[in-house]
Amino acid sequence: MVDARGGPAGHWRGVIEEYRQYLPVTEQTPVVTLLEGDTPLIPSQVIGPQLPGSIDLYFKYEGVNPTASFKDRGMTMAVSKAKEDGAQVTMCASTGNTSASAAAYSAIAGMQSVVLIPDGYVALGKLSQALAHGARVIQIAGNFDDCLSIVCEITDNYPVALVNSLNPYRLEGQKTAAFEVCNALGTPPDFHALPVGNAGNITAYWWGYKQYREAGKIDCLPRMLGFQAAGAAPMVRGEPVANPETIATAIRIGNPARWQEAAAAVEESGGLLRIVTDEEILVAYRKLGSSEGIFVEPASAAGVAGIIKLATEGFFGDEPTVVVCTLTGHGLKDPDRAVAMVEEPEKAPAQTETVVEMLGLAK
Amino acid sequence: MVDARGGPAGHWRGVIEEYRQYLPVTEQTPVVTLLEGDTPLIPSQVIGPQLPGSIDLYFKYEGVNPTASFKDRGMTMAVSKAKEDGAQVTMCASTGNTSASAAAYSAIAGMQSVVLIPDGYVALGKLSQALAHGARVIQIAGNFDDCLSIVCEITDNYPVALVNSLNPYRLEGQKTAAFEVCNALGTPPDFHALPVGNAGNITAYWWGYKQYREAGKIDCLPRMLGFQAAGAAPMVRGEPVANPETIATAIRIGNPARWQEAAAAVEESGGLLRIVTDEEILVAYRKLGSSEGIFVEPASAAGVAGIIKLATEGFFGDEPTVVVCTLTGHGLKDPDRAVAMVEEPEKAPAQTETVVEMLGLAK
Repeated sequence: MVDARGGPAGHWRGVIEEYRQYLPVTEQTPVVTLLEGDTPLIPSQVIGPQLPGSIDLYFKYEGVNPTASFKDRGMTMAVSKAKEDGAQVTMCASTGNTSASAAAYSAIAGMQSVVLIPDGYVALGKLSQALAHGARVIQIAGNFDDCLSIVCEITDNYPVALVNSLNPYRLEGQKTAAFEVCNALGTPPDFHALPVGNAGNITAYWWGYKQYREAGKIDCLPRMLGFQAAGAAPMVRGEPVANPETIATAIRIGNPARWQEAAAAVEESGGLLRIVTDEEILVAYRKLGSSEGIFVEPASAAGVAGIIKLATEGFFGDEPTVVVCTLTGHGLKDPDRAVAMVEEPEKAPAQTETVVEMLGLAK
Repeated sequence: MVDARGGPAGHWRGVIEEYRQYLPVTEQTPVVTLLEGDTPLIPSQVIGPQLPGSIDLYFKYEGVNPTASFKDRGMTMAVSKAKEDGAQVTMCASTGNTSASAAAYSAIAGMQSVVLIPDGYVALGKLSQALAHGARVIQIAGNFDDCLSIVCEITDNYPVALVNSLNPYRLEGQKTAAFEVCNALGTPPDFHALPVGNAGNITAYWWGYKQYREAGKIDCLPRMLGFQAAGAAPMVRGEPVANPETIATAIRIGNPARWQEAAAAVEESGGLLRIVTDEEILVAYRKLGSSEGIFVEPASAAGVAGIIKLATEGFFGDEPTVVVCTLTGHGLKDPDRAVAMVEEPEKAPAQTETVVEMLGLAK
């Protein structure tokens, strides 16, 4: 009786069902989904209008996926394919968004999730999601590379599915965000900006745009803009960074897994890769929260910082230009950052007059 | 060129634009939105199928709203109407989801958000969202009631908009979740279960269902099931609770603002109000995370705990029954709970064989 939106079932069915024809799945693939995707494309109210030139800026807010980051798009694919292959255990090395997503999708698939974390890693709060989803978390007496090599050795030799970003299905799922941008705008944007860490997401978006053009859904392509943090900018600098450092922990990566593919995406699209400093990231982070009402994890602000930088340099010219910027994860992923950046609450007695005075209110 | 979903703009436009005809807005109302709503209705994979009887269980997962709780549906209305009225400041007393949502929507509206919190409140992390959104947070030397009465006195006498749940527009926005449930299922469910704290949400859903029936969109109504935590169950016990206590902090309320309206909703619909213990809430909380892949704040698990309880008692009978349960907020709102409930990570040397042995893997 009602006007149902979306597919025949009347509601959004997750990225695999919605984009099945563009994905390497068959009728035999069990679809493991938490109804990820369908994230909002939010028009910028303040940052965009304040930029020089004539920029129409949108935020693709991936923080509203089920586990609060873009990783869910890839994980629905990776875990569905692992289940199709008969795996009963998934495994990854991660201290952040990947472990959260892997644990959630493994849980709903009825599979055991195993997460390896490096030694000395004490921010237990960040693992709250993996733990809540019943992952078995093992702390290895070694660094992240040690964890990853154990994961690779085990997944190569035992019936355990690798769900780190080396898993090729992850990018297949992630590319669906590009489809959604095109569906929302009616065309692709002129530019698409992203933070670049492991370089998988910028690669996936590019693949998505290209595939949508091949399918005749769009007739042009955006230019891809990638931004790396100054202390973790191997691609911009042209060599791996031994000890990457940045407050944007989700892109603190010294030797990206998808270096070549991402470099190709930028080159083919006529885009560019640039550095943004932690200071610029924090300015964008604060501005997103306090003027756009969007709370992100710091890495998400790198793309916005980059756009502000390029626009200020006159990069976009004066012609009307549509720019989409992906915000990769929710600010609740890293609440300590927000708290660390602001002052303690003010204090007042329980007297209305005092509060009125503090706020400078007049009737 | 693409097949756009949703409204004419090709994407979800937030609850005011999507449900304008059902809301007290006019063309003059400035729409302050973060594209809230359109949340997934996730079919239960494990909890539902394991229940006795023939229950088709769905979760309305409100944790994927922009500020990660259902409050955004009401706040888009409250702040839009405040802006229409010319207010430049919003104010609320809150230590949780309301302050996060009020701060975010005030930010995008270009309004100053003021949040009063009670004395002795030290969990600064929970305020991370309000702080990130630029709210002015003032700690009052008093309890929550002191904060609320200061808020009421100021908003009564100064051009400051009250956005606590006393604001009537909040429920108007919240009722849109009922519309979405009907749109997704094609009909209303047989039962709709919710946690009951301040009792606004169960009231709002009931209003929504009734309005959708009046509009001819559905032809029957669900029975409303409300669940209160044992230590904070004034409505079930029939009297206010002076010192409510429960781990489900979002429903730790001793004297609900919407007591009468919620009681009417339950009665009119032929539903019921029941108590669930903290232990039952935690069982449901764990089960949602580890078997459904859905991470919620503890209060969200109260509705699920209630359904499990009723089903076990045979309440739903053997006939096929559709039950929807609203999950009010994301687990990232209260990550300490997840961490507190699980064991520390296991430890292992950086040796593949040891990890293989720990996991009991065979080739």
